Amino acid sequence: MIEETDDLFDKLHEECGVMAIYNHPEASKLAYLGLYALQHRGQESAGIASADGIQIYRHKAMGQVSDIFTAEVLAKLPGRLAIGHTRYSTSGDSALLNAQPISVECNKGRIALAHNGNLVNAHEIRAKFEAQGSIFQTTSDTEVVVHLIAQSREQTLEDAVADALRRIEGAFSLVMTTPDRIFAARDARGFRPLCMGRIPASEGRPETVVFASETCAFDLIGANYERDVKPGEMIVVGPEGIHSRYYAPALEQSSCIFEHVYFSRPDSLVFGRSVQASRDEMGRQLARESHVDADLVIPVPDSGVTAAMGYAAESGIPFQFGLIRNHYVGRTFIEPEQRVRDFGVKLKLNPVRALIEGKRVILIDDSIVRGTTSKKIVRLVREAGAKEVHMRISCPPTISPCFYGVDTPSKKQLIAANMTVDQIRDYVGADTLAYLSLEGLKKAAGEGDKTSYCTACYTGKYPTQLVDVHLEDLAAVEVKSE
Amino acid sequence: MIEETDDLFDKLHEECGVMAIYNHPEASKLAYLGLYALQHRGQESAGIASADGIQIYRHKAMGQVSDIFTAEVLAKLPGRLAIGHTRYSTSGDSALLNAQPISVECNKGRIALAHNGNLVNAHEIRAKFEAQGSIFQTTSDTEVVVHLIAQSREQTLEDAVADALRRIEGAFSLVMTTPDRIFAARDARGFRPLCMGRIPASEGRPETVVFASETCAFDLIGANYERDVKPGEMIVVGPEGIHSRYYAPALEQSSCIFEHVYFSRPDSLVFGRSVQASRDEMGRQLARESHVDADLVIPVPDSGVTAAMGYAAESGIPFQFGLIRNHYVGRTFIEPEQRVRDFGVKLKLNPVRALIEGKRVILIDDSIVRGTTSKKIVRLVREAGAKEVHMRISCPPTISPCFYGVDTPSKKQLIAANMTVDQIRDYVGADTLAYLSLEGLKKAAGEGDKTSYCTACYTGKYPTQLVDVHLEDLAAVEVKSE
Amino acid sequence: MIEETDDLFDKLHEECGVMAIYNHPEASKLAYLGLYALQHRGQESAGIASADGIQIYRHKAMGQVSDIFTAEVLAKLPGRLAIGHTRYSTSGDSALLNAQPISVECNKGRIALAHNGNLVNAHEIRAKFEAQGSIFQTTSDTEVVVHLIAQSREQTLEDAVADALRRIEGAFSLVMTTPDRIFAARDARGFRPLCMGRIPASEGRPETVVFASETCAFDLIGANYERDVKPGEMIVVGPEGIHSRYYAPALEQSSCIFEHVYFSRPDSLVFGRSVQASRDEMGRQLARESHVDADLVIPVPDSGVTAAMGYAAESGIPFQFGLIRNHYVGRTFIEPEQRVRDFGVKLKLNPVRALIEGKRVILIDDSIVRGTTSKKIVRLVREAGAKEVHMRISCPPTISPCFYGVDTPSKKQLIAANMTVDQIRDYVGADTLAYLSLEGLKKAAGEGDKTSYCTACYTGKYPTQLVDVHLEDLAAVEVKSE
Amino acid sequence: MIEETDDLFDKLHEECGVMAIYNHPEASKLAYLGLYALQHRGQESAGIASADGIQIYRHKAMGQVSDIFTAEVLAKLPGRLAIGHTRYSTSGDSALLNAQPISVECNKGRIALAHNGNLVNAHEIRAKFEAQGSIFQTTSDTEVVVHLIAQSREQTLEDAVADALRRIEGAFSLVMTTPDRIFAARDARGFRPLCMGRIPASEGRPETVVFASETCAFDLIGANYERDVKPGEMIVVGPEGIHSRYYAPALEQSSCIFEHVYFSRPDSLVFGRSVQASRDEMGRQLARESHVDADLVIPVPDSGVTAAMGYAAESGIPFQFGLIRNHYVGRTFIEPEQRVRDFGVKLKLNPVRALIEGKRVILIDDSIVRGTTSKKIVRLVREAGAKEVHMRISCPPTISPCFYGVDTPSKKQLIAANMTVDQIRDYVGADTLAYLSLEGLKKAAGEGDKTSYCTACYTGKYPTQLVDVHLEDLAAVEVKSE
Repeated sequence: MIEETDDLFDKLHEECGVMAIYNHPEASKLAYLGLYALQHRGQESAGIASADGIQIYRHKAMGQVSDIFTAEVLAKLPGRLAIGHTRYSTSGDSALLNAQPISVECNKGRIALAHNGNLVNAHEIRAKFEAQGSIFQTTSDTEVVVHLIAQSREQTLEDAVADALRRIEGAFSLVMTTPDRIFAARDARGFRPLCMGRIPASEGRPETVVFASETCAFDLIGANYERDVKPGEMIVVGPEGIHSRYYAPALEQSSCIFEHVYFSRPDSLVFGRSVQASRDEMGRQLARESHVDADLVIPVPDSGVTAAMGYAAESGIPFQFGLIRNHYVGRTFIEPEQRVRDFGVKLKLNPVRALIEGKRVILIDDSIVRGTTSKKIVRLVREAGAKEVHMRISCPPTISPCFYGVDTPSKKQLIAANMTVDQIRDYVGADTLAYLSLEGLKKAAGEGDKTSYCTACYTGKYPTQLVDVHLEDLAAVEVKSE
Repeated sequence: MIEETDDLFDKLHEECGVMAIYNHPEASKLAYLGLYALQHRGQESAGIASADGIQIYRHKAMGQVSDIFTAEVLAKLPGRLAIGHTRYSTSGDSALLNAQPISVECNKGRIALAHNGNLVNAHEIRAKFEAQGSIFQTTSDTEVVVHLIAQSREQTLEDAVADALRRIEGAFSLVMTTPDRIFAARDARGFRPLCMGRIPASEGRPETVVFASETCAFDLIGANYERDVKPGEMIVVGPEGIHSRYYAPALEQSSCIFEHVYFSRPDSLVFGRSVQASRDEMGRQLARESHVDADLVIPVPDSGVTAAMGYAAESGIPFQFGLIRNHYVGRTFIEPEQRVRDFGVKLKLNPVRALIEGKRVILIDDSIVRGTTSKKIVRLVREAGAKEVHMRISCPPTISPCFYGVDTPSKKQLIAANMTVDQIRDYVGADTLAYLSLEGLKKAAGEGDKTSYCTACYTGKYPTQLVDVHLEDLAAVEVKSE
Repeated sequence: MIEETDDLFDKLHEECGVMAIYNHPEASKLAYLGLYALQHRGQESAGIASADGIQIYRHKAMGQVSDIFTAEVLAKLPGRLAIGHTRYSTSGDSALLNAQPISVECNKGRIALAHNGNLVNAHEIRAKFEAQGSIFQTTSDTEVVVHLIAQSREQTLEDAVADALRRIEGAFSLVMTTPDRIFAARDARGFRPLCMGRIPASEGRPETVVFASETCAFDLIGANYERDVKPGEMIVVGPEGIHSRYYAPALEQSSCIFEHVYFSRPDSLVFGRSVQASRDEMGRQLARESHVDADLVIPVPDSGVTAAMGYAAESGIPFQFGLIRNHYVGRTFIEPEQRVRDFGVKLKLNPVRALIEGKRVILIDDSIVRGTTSKKIVRLVREAGAKEVHMRISCPPTISPCFYGVDTPSKKQLIAANMTVDQIRDYVGADTLAYLSLEGLKKAAGEGDKTSYCTACYTGKYPTQLVDVHLEDLAAVEVKSE
Repeated sequence: MIEETDDLFDKLHEECGVMAIYNHPEASKLAYLGLYALQHRGQESAGIASADGIQIYRHKAMGQVSDIFTAEVLAKLPGRLAIGHTRYSTSGDSALLNAQPISVECNKGRIALAHNGNLVNAHEIRAKFEAQGSIFQTTSDTEVVVHLIAQSREQTLEDAVADALRRIEGAFSLVMTTPDRIFAARDARGFRPLCMGRIPASEGRPETVVFASETCAFDLIGANYERDVKPGEMIVVGPEGIHSRYYAPALEQSSCIFEHVYFSRPDSLVFGRSVQASRDEMGRQLARESHVDADLVIPVPDSGVTAAMGYAAESGIPFQFGLIRNHYVGRTFIEPEQRVRDFGVKLKLNPVRALIEGKRVILIDDSIVRGTTSKKIVRLVREAGAKEVHMRISCPPTISPCFYGVDTPSKKQLIAANMTVDQIRDYVGADTLAYLSLEGLKKAAGEGDKTSYCTACYTGKYPTQLVDVHLEDLAAVEVKSE
């Protein structure tokens, strides 16, 4: 039996999507629909906390959003305020323990909090707290933030939150609810996305303010995108209206470029830019940079599709769906004992022999992480009769782990940290292999226009200090950060 | 709460997929994998019967293949023979009762049987049997076939099956297992597909013979496609080898053209022809027949994609994924009480405003059944800023119900049976609307080459008598069959 | 892991309980409550069929009554008529297939039918039907009855049922529903119980007629016991009222005495007599027949309790609950690998050392089947410090299998068919062992008063022919029937 | 639909049972079996934490022990140390949050902790901590204990635990595990039971030390009872052996007498005395104190049985099971809309008319809490034909709530806090009613022998201060404590 995960496709995982709703009679339902639209950012656990002015209610569980939030469960999440969270995680009891939102009671009252991202000084802060006698129930960063809020000497909750956010370093897009207020904040470099929108007032229902990781969550609930939460900004929505403050001076923006390469949904605006447009341009730029004569452009579905279409349009080589994806995928598969070669990949992808046979194929994918899946896919395409297989990747080689919220494997497992492009080409069995250049990628993603990007996974140059990183990781990392 | 079904997309449903395995040490596992690949043909119940030379074992349940067949369940389905079935159906106890394979004991021994298709004289036969004192436990056609086998005066099981098949009229692709033999048969007009393949012998394991509704089921289990079961043919595989007989003279072939338009997976060969190639050609032909000036060709995913690409290639108008499909779809959705307009469609499709805004859009879909979903999709596209919306359908108007295994709604619900194309255009709100011509469709699907097609849903001309059809249906039908 | 079954207690199983309701607005709910009260007669699957004058609805499933029949399920069983069934059975798909009621359509209309008991000529009849081309979907006796009804030449359903019942031999208490009538019938020897009662009319609700295996099912639904269905009697309740007929002449009554010894609930009237009173008298008679000096009378709970109290009262020796039963028993138990001796029994029974230590104990149980559990219990009691253990059984030695609805193990497994009483005493490790005499048992159960009993399990003298019994069984049996 | 709870029987609930195992290769399995035996102390959630010298593992869930701890779950709880907990609780997410053991990380390392009982100054301590900036995730007392340990200035964990225990007031029997040591402690007045035992060494397996709330948990795992943990004692078992210390001077012992009246299993030794023996003596004393002429003594099963037998033995009036308990009880019941009177009670109890009719009955129960169930039971017995019903209760009237771990309803709901015995007699509809005297109860439970008892629920005299008690409760309570 093999377990079904996207690792079969050798992809990186975002760790979370967040959602918040202020002032809607069905706040928890809207949060649920928003999480549903954000499930590509984490589909292994989800949680919602709602508030009705007096109390906070919460439900979180392992599983997919639409399985977790039944009508019965939503009925137990009353009130006009809600925040939601969806994440990847490992299995078991502690997985649920670490699921968000976390909900606590402290001297500033009851709060529930969820965030997307990863702190780089959480362990350091935690060690200090433990030395003072604090106890921790989870291993998540989020609990550190809550301790900072509780122990802050600021008098008001808002000041205490600002104080806490100033003390944490790293990537976070955070939403929080008290019984009667929603907080939304983003780290000072703007690593992870967080946008704000409104559902217009209607028939006696006042306007609703919403926050989400991506705009695709707004479309489903009828909200209009207004703007991004800015790096270093904290927005508070309450009975007195909306106000915004900068809890810290904004630092040089370093938004995650991989949101445009792979993570975000193509129908979203992320960092104010259309993801679809970025990917189309990545494919076009890739065609300009590394042309090859061929008969067909074939994407690795689903994430390679837009870049492949851009590549085809720019190069004039016909685009075809030469690999068909099976979407009826359950949790686990029983594999025959007499193993079928590349079984895991075949469960999901099937080549169309009638299209491929005898053709020179350009295969477009968005990234190669460990290389194992690419090897299998190239083999599938060859076995379906391709004469040549030219692999093109719509970003540069991934050589360094991410410490800002992406679940990268260690450097040892990153094929591009250990092999040259030629070696990778030989390993995956392609006739040629080319990656998009870093400059080409930045241009395609609109660098300089509204946004500047973090590209540490391609360069090893990290925009923050890395306090929590273990020594062996630092050693590896330092070489790259020179 | 709205229930999640593909009806949101206003599609027709195939009723079944079938699978059979002869002589493999893990027969039930292969049947399960085959069903997994055939799930697009019916994902609401599934069953497998296996045989070990002496006994027959069976498990069937409501739900999706990968949920039903756990390692534990497959362990209780031993033996080197297996047949499998997956189907659409309604909910509740009787749904399970009617799930296949059915397994019975009669004077010819124990048999298990599954079929894809629909008999047009089942009610008539059933009525005769009941008059003689037979009892029926299900309302399925399959039980009628079994009664015919049991009551046949032929001495051998094989002759009795042939005798039974001669007495039934309509569409059926049937697989059957006894404790030690697999039977596969197809009706005399070849309505529904059924193909045969082999897994080559390997390391002491002898060759395995397999049957499936589509070849995509072969790819996953490493089987090679050999040929279709012919109309009127019955193939028996047993210890003595494979033999074939024609239980009835083949009639004029009338294979279901809608398999190529919508049902089958694009990576399958169906009726010996690539489905992908047919759909690409449908799009190209549609572009030739009904050109319109526009900026973008956008498919209604997933089924409109290949035709849209053919259309774009032929017309030179750029193709774009302007509608993004959400694949994380669970069973049910809780809708806000303050209804979101077109909520059901928005759950699954989200337009990419950045692409669509200000553009003249050609929207390609494979069919319009009731028209309700098309109306919503056109509205979605307009609300995303499209300047013009031109709808193109890759087959002719659907005007008549199918009696051969497709779950068509009644004529009253078929929009094209009740409106002209201009009226439909106005109803769905498109600027222009055009369908592929019947001749164009037949050509695109390769009519005349190896296959001739049933096109009754577009013409109302039925290739068989319709014994079971109720009077009111006949009235409606007769008008059209003139 | 050991599976939790009552086999740990080495008990015989009744195969079924039945229930029927005529003319109540909540018929299926009452059937469900009746089944709940009858669960001691079979707690592994249950089913209800209801009828509303036009249609029949049915639900059956594996599991316990209160788990199966949720409010949601009962809502799908409308109508003023209902029949219900609960049974023991083995696991897996075929178990559900064989669960009752079975529901079929035949030339006499749609009927649903359930019965308690076992036919002794079902295989013979079935073989004849199969030779004629009939098919069978289950392996249950009930399906044979349905075929007999369908094939009867009688014109009316009532005559056809009577005809069918005349052709079957053995033990059956049967309830049946058509869309608008309830049938209840009992075999000509009255093996298994079936009683009739009424819920009085109230506030516009007319009187309701009910049938059940035991009167304890009446108490919960507010019905009053009226009388037993007589041996050979068929009662039909419909819009025209109640009428009764004898489909066959009543034969010498041979009601199952083991209903009084063990099966039935003590709070029921069975065969018109209080079960509690019978058991109390069995204990008293046992004390008279086999007195022994001792300090304490201890029952094996729960079934030995009443007889133990009778024994104590008659003998003057104090009664104590020296073995405590744990009622929180789930389905399976994980046993330590370092095995605990007599683990299975200890899970359920714990001796009270403070009571037992140093005492001469009389242990009362209702039967010894295989002897394995008795051996463990005697050991438990000795390990808790008992000085002497005297075992007394409230019926004679069980030497012959039952063919009338009790799930007896084969003769090879019945300890008393293979050992003398002295040998059994040594095997179980008791100081003395005595059984109640056959005459004593009959007297205690009121033989001759209203009822005469079948005692075949104690005598090997069967009141019917045993057509279906396999040769090896017959051989063994014939010896005993001399 | 009514929910199935023991409230139908108007009983008080213990809040917890605890278990600990030191040095056994299958520690978590033994903990599970111990919890299984302790389920009468709380069957709504359960948890186990195990330790293997380096790490702590934990699983807790809502539900019954044998449903929660499957072989799969136990396999994830490795190590030679384990603690377990089972409890009553309310439903929902926070119920699980509050389930025990709780497991935290602090400056003294990782610990898991579970306790039985209730602290009377937890709110006060918690308020202080929150003022200092501590955060709380649960509302349980246990989290307060953990904060006290973490904030203690003592250097070693053992000293810190002793320090923490000195600061809490109330009732607690506590077990704790670190990665390599088990702690067991009991409050200074010894309210709740906690006993210690050993499993002898065997075949290379060294001796195992175990702790449990009651000795019945020892019987199943083959452990021998050694002694109780003393009031004020803390026992630590680790690689260096067992040592004991008194973290506080023992105060006047005030063990909960209701453990002997109702909570504990009759086969347990509790506070060093046989529960069965206590209950038998309560019944005898009751007979001496309040004799009445009658024909039968009938217990309310199961808890009234032993006292009823004592009553019958002392009075010479015959004992009979006149009320039969249905043990097949699921979670919820669907009640007919046409309500059955006393439905909830009838689901569980059925009177044996044949025994009761025309008789003068003495009905023995262990307590009356709200009186509602007693009223229904008396009515059941009368409707079954009893000529007279004399109710006898085997303890004094319950007039005051418990603050030491029993889930008593408020004074307003306690019938005896609001009515005289004569009024209660009229309310429940008995002919006579008598309670056991306080002196009689103490004598029956062995007061003075080894134990002195807390009888606050009968007297309103509380052995501790009641810091956390709300003002309105105090008012009510003070009156009684005069």
